[in-house]
Amino acid sequence: MNIANAFADLEVGYDIPAIPGMAEADIETPCLILDLDALERNIRKMGSYAEAHGMRHRAHAKMHKSVDVLRLQQELGGAVGVCCQKVSEAEVFARAGFKDILVSNQVRGPFKVDRLSRLPKYGSRIIVCVDDTRNVEELSLAARKHGTNLDCFVEIDCGAGRCGVTTAGTVVAIAEAIDAAPGLRFAGLQAYQGAMQHIDNYEDRKIKLDAAIAQVKDAVQALKAANLEPELVSGGGTGSYYFEASSGVFNELQCGSYAFMDADYGRIRDDSGKRIDQGEWENALFILTSVMSHAKSDKAICDAGLKSQSIDSGLPFIFGREDVRYIKCSDEHGIIEDKNGVLSINEKLRLVPGHCDPTCNVHDWYVGVRRGKVETLWPISARGKGY
Amino acid sequence: MNIANAFADLEVGYDIPAIPGMAEADIETPCLILDLDALERNIRKMGSYAEAHGMRHRAHAKMHKSVDVLRLQQELGGAVGVCCQKVSEAEVFARAGFKDILVSNQVRGPFKVDRLSRLPKYGSRIIVCVDDTRNVEELSLAARKHGTNLDCFVEIDCGAGRCGVTTAGTVVAIAEAIDAAPGLRFAGLQAYQGAMQHIDNYEDRKIKLDAAIAQVKDAVQALKAANLEPELVSGGGTGSYYFEASSGVFNELQCGSYAFMDADYGRIRDDSGKRIDQGEWENALFILTSVMSHAKSDKAICDAGLKSQSIDSGLPFIFGREDVRYIKCSDEHGIIEDKNGVLSINEKLRLVPGHCDPTCNVHDWYVGVRRGKVETLWPISARGKGY
Repeated sequence: MNIANAFADLEVGYDIPAIPGMAEADIETPCLILDLDALERNIRKMGSYAEAHGMRHRAHAKMHKSVDVLRLQQELGGAVGVCCQKVSEAEVFARAGFKDILVSNQVRGPFKVDRLSRLPKYGSRIIVCVDDTRNVEELSLAARKHGTNLDCFVEIDCGAGRCGVTTAGTVVAIAEAIDAAPGLRFAGLQAYQGAMQHIDNYEDRKIKLDAAIAQVKDAVQALKAANLEPELVSGGGTGSYYFEASSGVFNELQCGSYAFMDADYGRIRDDSGKRIDQGEWENALFILTSVMSHAKSDKAICDAGLKSQSIDSGLPFIFGREDVRYIKCSDEHGIIEDKNGVLSINEKLRLVPGHCDPTCNVHDWYVGVRRGKVETLWPISARGKGY
Repeated sequence: MNIANAFADLEVGYDIPAIPGMAEADIETPCLILDLDALERNIRKMGSYAEAHGMRHRAHAKMHKSVDVLRLQQELGGAVGVCCQKVSEAEVFARAGFKDILVSNQVRGPFKVDRLSRLPKYGSRIIVCVDDTRNVEELSLAARKHGTNLDCFVEIDCGAGRCGVTTAGTVVAIAEAIDAAPGLRFAGLQAYQGAMQHIDNYEDRKIKLDAAIAQVKDAVQALKAANLEPELVSGGGTGSYYFEASSGVFNELQCGSYAFMDADYGRIRDDSGKRIDQGEWENALFILTSVMSHAKSDKAICDAGLKSQSIDSGLPFIFGREDVRYIKCSDEHGIIEDKNGVLSINEKLRLVPGHCDPTCNVHDWYVGVRRGKVETLWPISARGKGY
């Protein structure tokens, strides 16, 4: 097979966007590509940071949903565990051999609880978050049924306004219930402040995290008083990890987006006022798209629309181009302002998606590229696993 | 196997949300469900309308991406053909045996053109849109290479501002190029006004369509003068089909969303000022979601977030409930305002998604329900097929 023209030799219906060895120019669009050099640098950097600050890094796989990216985070970034949001994701990672898995979410419903409680049979430590003592009973019952043990974090709502409890008293009450429940073990606290991660200004983010840290310290104090010192205090995202790392109370980070970056995270500022995609992290994830129509001189139409990305956090930007702008998105099309008519049909552009997590969730493959060549093709192992 | 408790008997890692025969209450969430009675009524209604108005109905499968829904549109709704937006979708429908397939989009890039030109070998009539004479050459070359014939529509941009040409002169020039190209046949016009479909007011929509119809009439006139009368003049969506049907110039409709409905389409008004989801069409598609946390008394958290839907056209609404409201969406969670604390853990809600097309594209299955029971499980056959 001639790799340079490999697709021409294949039969109808192949569903891969690239073949390792082919030129980047021959990749089928729209698809997700990973700049492997940038990805590896991001991963090493977060690994070094965590190590230097004595923090465990539990990589958040809900973002990339990929066994292969996770393996890289382990090998190059020293990640000691994984977190994900759904039982069906945890199944993927347990079966792939990862040994320390946190479902950083509540697991309710009899079938889900049942599935979760079977997972330790894969030889993995399974941790789950709890914010309700009735859930403690359900989890305990299921763990006993399957003869397994589940570790439990009490989830604190430290500002995100989602799941989790808010008072130290409730944290202790739930921890005590866990501690008393056969098949369960109280393993620590989940305290992720999700609502502040995307606030642009560093000082404004710091104010939110200071409040969260104070709240977590209170809870730890109360737990110690109840003789239930938490083994792990886990949290932190790409917009906040330095606050958790210097808090003196957290000992585990849960960053995800740093590895790929996206347009919405890229806009936030570091402590010197610089965009975090201009130094702190590199854009490693792109939607590769092609120009497919240019019937109007000032507008080019590309083949990446809503079915190639999520625009919940804004439109993508075109990487490395100041002369053209992605201005509108419909189901299968992107409209690109091309005032000077510089784009030509079939020209490829790299889009930085507004929000990486839900964008990755619509694709089946990551095409890993390095120096203009396709190096690898990774399945998005947990794509669509929402149960 | 005890269907009532079927999931409890399965091994880890099953990726289906339901098993036919089980109660609706036992469906795993989040997932898409179809109210089969409502779906069938919508499909029959559009079929009767098209028949009564002497219009062909080419059902738009880019919306549902499902071989099974398409089959229903054929059997109950008299659909005579299918349209889709991507070559990889057309492959799915050609291999499933559908005989009249329109790719209502431009196909550019050597591999895509090559794939498309092989498809007539499945015994299907394949139609593709063109807005550039260079594309005519590419398609002709590929059709000759594979010994096939492709039908071509010239695409008119009648207000959507996307692909397509705007003047009658250009339409004729491209039609002539098609007519002269070996392996190609000029089959008609594509004229879908996508930009007006979601304008709330009926009269405002009518103004846009009147302009589009005038433009199409001009083009048809010019084609007749050039001895190139179009066999098919195709267009029309859920917000406009009655305008095309009474235009005297269109002979084919391309409606898609009518079958499922969504929140954004539901808001538009018919000629009597009534929402179209309050009489014209029924909501047949829902995201089934469960309450998974209620740690705050006035807020319930459900398990359907951005990875279960696209919110590009607004948040979902909760079907049949006035007392609770879906107010915020993050990756895996929905926040529900529950002022009176009426919701309980594991309670299931039916969400009507903001926009059906990109919402269907993140799921793998439709669970067909009727009178509280799961009747069928349909794969979303062309999910993620974006090439």
